[in-house]
Amino acid sequence: MFSCWLSRLCGGLSTPTGRVTHLIQGSLSRRLMLSSQRRIPELNSFVARTNTCGELRSSHLGQEVTLCGWIQYRRQNIFLVLRDFHGLVQVVIPQDESAASVKKILCEAPMESVVQVSGTVISRPPGQENPKMPTGEIEIKVKSAQLLNTCKKLPFEIKDFVKKTEALRLQYRYLDLRSFQMQYNLRLRSRMVMKMREYLCNLHGFVDIETPTLFKRTPGGAKEFVIPSREPGKFYCLPQSPQQFKQLLMVGGLDRYFQVARCYRDEGSRPDRQPEFTQIDIEMSFVDQIGIQSLIEGLLQYSWPSDKDPVVVPFPSMTFAEALASYGTDKPDTRFGMKEVLPVFPKANRNWNSPVAKSIMEEQRSELIRLMEIQEDGVVLLTAGEHRKACSVLGKLRLECADLLEARGLVLRDPALFSFLWVVDFPLFLPKEENPGELESAHHPFTAPHPSDIHLLHTEPKQVRSQHYDLVLNGNEIGGGSIRIHDAELQRYILATLLKEDVKLLSHLLQALDFGAPPHGGIALGLDRLICLVTGAPSIRDVIAFPKSFRGHDLMSNAPDSLPPEELKPYHIQVSWPADSEAEKSSLNQPYHPES
Amino acid sequence: MFSCWLSRLCGGLSTPTGRVTHLIQGSLSRRLMLSSQRRIPELNSFVARTNTCGELRSSHLGQEVTLCGWIQYRRQNIFLVLRDFHGLVQVVIPQDESAASVKKILCEAPMESVVQVSGTVISRPPGQENPKMPTGEIEIKVKSAQLLNTCKKLPFEIKDFVKKTEALRLQYRYLDLRSFQMQYNLRLRSRMVMKMREYLCNLHGFVDIETPTLFKRTPGGAKEFVIPSREPGKFYCLPQSPQQFKQLLMVGGLDRYFQVARCYRDEGSRPDRQPEFTQIDIEMSFVDQIGIQSLIEGLLQYSWPSDKDPVVVPFPSMTFAEALASYGTDKPDTRFGMKEVLPVFPKANRNWNSPVAKSIMEEQRSELIRLMEIQEDGVVLLTAGEHRKACSVLGKLRLECADLLEARGLVLRDPALFSFLWVVDFPLFLPKEENPGELESAHHPFTAPHPSDIHLLHTEPKQVRSQHYDLVLNGNEIGGGSIRIHDAELQRYILATLLKEDVKLLSHLLQALDFGAPPHGGIALGLDRLICLVTGAPSIRDVIAFPKSFRGHDLMSNAPDSLPPEELKPYHIQVSWPADSEAEKSSLNQPYHPES
Repeated sequence: MFSCWLSRLCGGLSTPTGRVTHLIQGSLSRRLMLSSQRRIPELNSFVARTNTCGELRSSHLGQEVTLCGWIQYRRQNIFLVLRDFHGLVQVVIPQDESAASVKKILCEAPMESVVQVSGTVISRPPGQENPKMPTGEIEIKVKSAQLLNTCKKLPFEIKDFVKKTEALRLQYRYLDLRSFQMQYNLRLRSRMVMKMREYLCNLHGFVDIETPTLFKRTPGGAKEFVIPSREPGKFYCLPQSPQQFKQLLMVGGLDRYFQVARCYRDEGSRPDRQPEFTQIDIEMSFVDQIGIQSLIEGLLQYSWPSDKDPVVVPFPSMTFAEALASYGTDKPDTRFGMKEVLPVFPKANRNWNSPVAKSIMEEQRSELIRLMEIQEDGVVLLTAGEHRKACSVLGKLRLECADLLEARGLVLRDPALFSFLWVVDFPLFLPKEENPGELESAHHPFTAPHPSDIHLLHTEPKQVRSQHYDLVLNGNEIGGGSIRIHDAELQRYILATLLKEDVKLLSHLLQALDFGAPPHGGIALGLDRLICLVTGAPSIRDVIAFPKSFRGHDLMSNAPDSLPPEELKPYHIQVSWPADSEAEKSSLNQPYHPES
Repeated sequence: MFSCWLSRLCGGLSTPTGRVTHLIQGSLSRRLMLSSQRRIPELNSFVARTNTCGELRSSHLGQEVTLCGWIQYRRQNIFLVLRDFHGLVQVVIPQDESAASVKKILCEAPMESVVQVSGTVISRPPGQENPKMPTGEIEIKVKSAQLLNTCKKLPFEIKDFVKKTEALRLQYRYLDLRSFQMQYNLRLRSRMVMKMREYLCNLHGFVDIETPTLFKRTPGGAKEFVIPSREPGKFYCLPQSPQQFKQLLMVGGLDRYFQVARCYRDEGSRPDRQPEFTQIDIEMSFVDQIGIQSLIEGLLQYSWPSDKDPVVVPFPSMTFAEALASYGTDKPDTRFGMKEVLPVFPKANRNWNSPVAKSIMEEQRSELIRLMEIQEDGVVLLTAGEHRKACSVLGKLRLECADLLEARGLVLRDPALFSFLWVVDFPLFLPKEENPGELESAHHPFTAPHPSDIHLLHTEPKQVRSQHYDLVLNGNEIGGGSIRIHDAELQRYILATLLKEDVKLLSHLLQALDFGAPPHGGIALGLDRLICLVTGAPSIRDVIAFPKSFRGHDLMSNAPDSLPPEELKPYHIQVSWPADSEAEKSSLNQPYHPES
C-alpha cells in the first residue's frame, strides 16, 4: 500500500474568515444573555473587608472601604499598590504627622506583606489616571492600617513577567499560585466544572455518585498503585477509572450517573502525565452512541467559558479508518488541512526533484499532479509501507511541517480556535504487542461490538469494529467512551475465549450482568487536559493546584518520602532494597536484584 | 467535685408543639417558593424512552409513550408492573392473537428482566384505580415490547419489605441499589451536595480546588494508608484531610476554597467508620470564627432538602465547659433536656431511696429538691469524682435513660427534629494519653489559640482555649474547624517547644507562613454522617453507594485481595508473613513475628 500527502507550503491554506466574524457576533450576544441570567457571587460576605481591591471603580467614589491584600509595589513612600485575587488598587500613604503610625506600617512592611487598610475611594488627580489598570481612575485615601503578617525575603518575585524555572515554581507552589495566570486557570477550572454540574445535575437529572478509590486489582491493571491493608498479603488498588462501579450503578437502576472522579495511574516517569488525575465520568442507561455524543456536545456548549468563542454543535465525526488515512492518527488536529490522500496512480511528466521519483511511473505522476493540484514549487511527501505505519509516519510529518511553518510566522493552528471531532468505529481488538497472535482490547473489555459486525466475532474477531468513540480537540484526545456489553454471555465469551483473561477477578461484574442489566453506555472526559487546552496553558501542571513533577514528586513537601520500618509493620510489608541502593538498609529486609 | 442530674421520668418533658406548627407553615411556603424557582430536570433527554414510569398521570391520557424498566410484578398474565428509578406503572398485557409476540415477551420474561414497551396511556376502568400509587389512575395499553435483558434467579427479592442481612445486601450491592430507600438516599445526597456547591460557588465566590491524595506522612499521622512508589523505600500517604493544602491555598491568595474532598483514615475495624470518607472542606482568608459559623448556617439552610422542616439560624452556641457540665459530652443531643446540674448543697429532709443518701447532708437534700424541682417519685442520678469523668458518666447515663424512655414509647428524640449546636472554646491542648506529662493538640497543631488566652501559652499552656469550633447535630459531631495560626513563629513554638514534633516534616508549611500568609480559618463537614442524619438512615453505609464492611472489606468484589509477588517488585516491597499465617508464603519473603 502506498500513501502520501501534499502540502503547498505557504499557499492556499484556507483561513476561516467568514466563520470567525460569525462567531464573534454569536459570542457577544451570548455573553449579554449570560450576564443577565447570571447572579454575581458575593465576594465580601463573612469577612473583614468591604470590597475586593480589583472591583473598585469611579462608581465607588466617596465610599468608605476596608481592603485586605498583599503589598505589590511601593513608590517613594507615597503610593502603595495593594493586590488581592481580584486585582490591584493604588493606596495613597498619608504624609501628615497625625497619621504617622499608619505611614510607618505602610512604609516599613516588606513587599508581599499582608495588610488591612480602611479609607475613602477618591479620584486620582487629573492626568494621573492609569487607563491600563481597571481601577486606574481611583485610589484609596487611607485612614487606618493594620499589618496582618510580614513577609520574609522571597525566593522569587510574584510579578508575572519575572520568569522562574518550573522546579522553583513547584517548590514554592503557594507563591506561584499568587500569579495572575494560576489564579485565572484555577478559577476558570472551578467555574467550568460548576457549569458542567449544573448541566448534568440540574438540567438533565444526573446523580452525582461517589465511588470507592480503595478497590481491587482489575485484569490487566498493571498501572495500578497498590495499598497494603492490615491483613497480611492483602492489598487494595487505586483504580484507573470508576469503570466497573459506573456499570454496576446502571445495573442498580441509578439511570444517569456522573462524578468528577479522581483516578490513578502509575506510569512511572512520563512527561505531562500525573499519577493522579481527574475525569468527568458519565454513564447512562437505555442510551446509544448518538445519545452520549449529543449529551457531551450540549455539556461543552453549556459549560464553555464566556470569554471564549462559543462551541458550535454538532461536532463533526470521522471513522477511525478515515482519520488514519487522512491524518495518520486517531486524534487529528482538524484546525488545518494538509491531509493525506490515497492516490490511484496513472500518467504524468514533470521534473521531480526526489530520489523517490524513479520508483514512480510516468502515468502515476500526472495523476498525482491532478489529484493533489500540484503547482510549480509544490512539495509532495510520500511514504510507502504497511498501511497503518505509513499513515502514522505521514501524520507525524504533517505536524512537523506545521511546526516549521508556524516557526516562520504562519498561523496554522489558531490557539483561539477549538476544533472538536468525534472519532468512531475503532477496531474492538488489537493484536497483542508482545504476542501478535493473541488479541487485546483496543480500549477495555467492556466495550460493545458494533452491531453490524457481531457476526464476525466468532470468525474474524480482528475485523470487528466497536461502539467506542473518542472526542478529539485540536489534536488531543480529551475523552473516550463506549456503549457497553450488557449481555453476560457475550461478556464472558469476549473475556474468557477471545481475551483469555481470568474471569474470576470480574465475577461480580459478570454476575451483575446476569441480574437484569439495562443497556448502557458512557464516556469520560479528561478534565486536566481539557482545561489545559481551554486556558492555553503550556502543561497540565498549570491547571492543577499542586501537581507532581514528571517524576511523580511533590517538590514542595518532598513526597514520596521514607518511612521508618515500624510504620510498615501494621501492613505486613518490608522494603526490598536493591543491591546497589545507597539508601539505609533495614536489618529486617533482604536485598534482592530488581528486574531490569 | 460533685455533679449530678435529675430526670423527672415521664414528666414535664417539654414538647416543642408551637415550634412545629410554625415550622410546618414555613416549610410549606418555602417549598412553593422553591418549586417556582427550580427548573425541573429533563429525565428523558438523549435516550430511547419518552417518559419515566413514575411520572405518568391522568394528564398524559391518550399520549403515545415508550418506557424502559424492570418487571416488578406480573398478575395472571394480564397485568405487569414496570419499575424504573422514578416509580411504578401498570402495563396491560395484550390478549388478542395479533399481539401474540408481545404477549409472549411480557409473559415469559422472568421478574427483574429489563423491557422496553411502547403504547398508549389510558384510564384504568372505574373502580380499579389505585389511590396508593402515584400512577394509580392510569395504565399503559401496550402495542410493542422488546426484551432488553433477562434476569436469572436473584439471591433476594428487590421489594423493600423483604428483609435481607447487610452482608447479603453488600455482596449484591447493585441489586440493593434498586431499592426505594437506596435510590432516595443517593439522590438526596447528590441534590444536597449540588445545592451546597451553588451556595459556595455561585453565591459566595468560592473556588472548587482539587488537592492531591498522594501526599506524604503528616506528623502523628499514624492512621494514614501508605502507598509504595517505584523508588525503593519511598512511600506516598493518603491524607486524612486536605488540611495543609487548604492552608497553602490561602497563602497562595485563593481567598475562598472549597472541595468535596475524599479523605482516608486507616482505623482498622471500627463499626460505622469507613476507610475512605467524604468531607465538605472549606477555607477562607480574612475571616473570624463568627464568619465561618454564619457561612455554614447559610450553607445548611440553603442546601437543606425541601421535604424536611427548614433549618432555623443562627444555631445556638455553647462552650465546651458548659457542654461538659450540662450534658457530659462535647456533642450534646439538644433535642431533649434532662441536663446535668452542679448543685451547691444545703438543707433538706425526705425519704431518699438510695444508699448514696447517707453521704448527703440534710441541708444538701432540701437544696437538691428545690434546685431540681424534685417531686414525689422523682429520680435523681448522682455521680462523684473527677469533674470530666463524672460529667462523662452522667452524659452516658442521660442517653441510656433516653433509650429506656423511648423503649417505653416516649418520643424524646424526634427524628424529624434537627437540633444544631455550635460547641466552642475547646482547650487547645490535652495531656497525652500515654504520657500525661506531655501535651498533644486537642484537634490539630494548626489551631489558633483563643486571643484572650495567648498570654498563658508560655506559662500555663494547659489552660489555653482554642479558636476551634465543632458543629453538632442531634448529638453527633458533623463538622469541626478553627481559625488557624498564620504566624510562623507561633506555629514553630507550638510545634517544636510545646508539642515536641519533628518540624522538618512541616518545613514547607512553616516556610509558607513566613512568606505573607493571610489570617485564615475554615471548617470541614462530615458529609456521610450529615446525609445519614438527614435521611434517617441506620448507618453511614446506607448513604454510600459502595461502602466497605466494618472490617474494611468490599464484599462485592472481595477487596482487599492477594497479589502475586511479581506485582509488588516494581514497588520494592515484599510481604512479611506472620509466622502463624495460613496464607501462601513467597520464597522471597522472610516471616517475622508481628508486634502484638
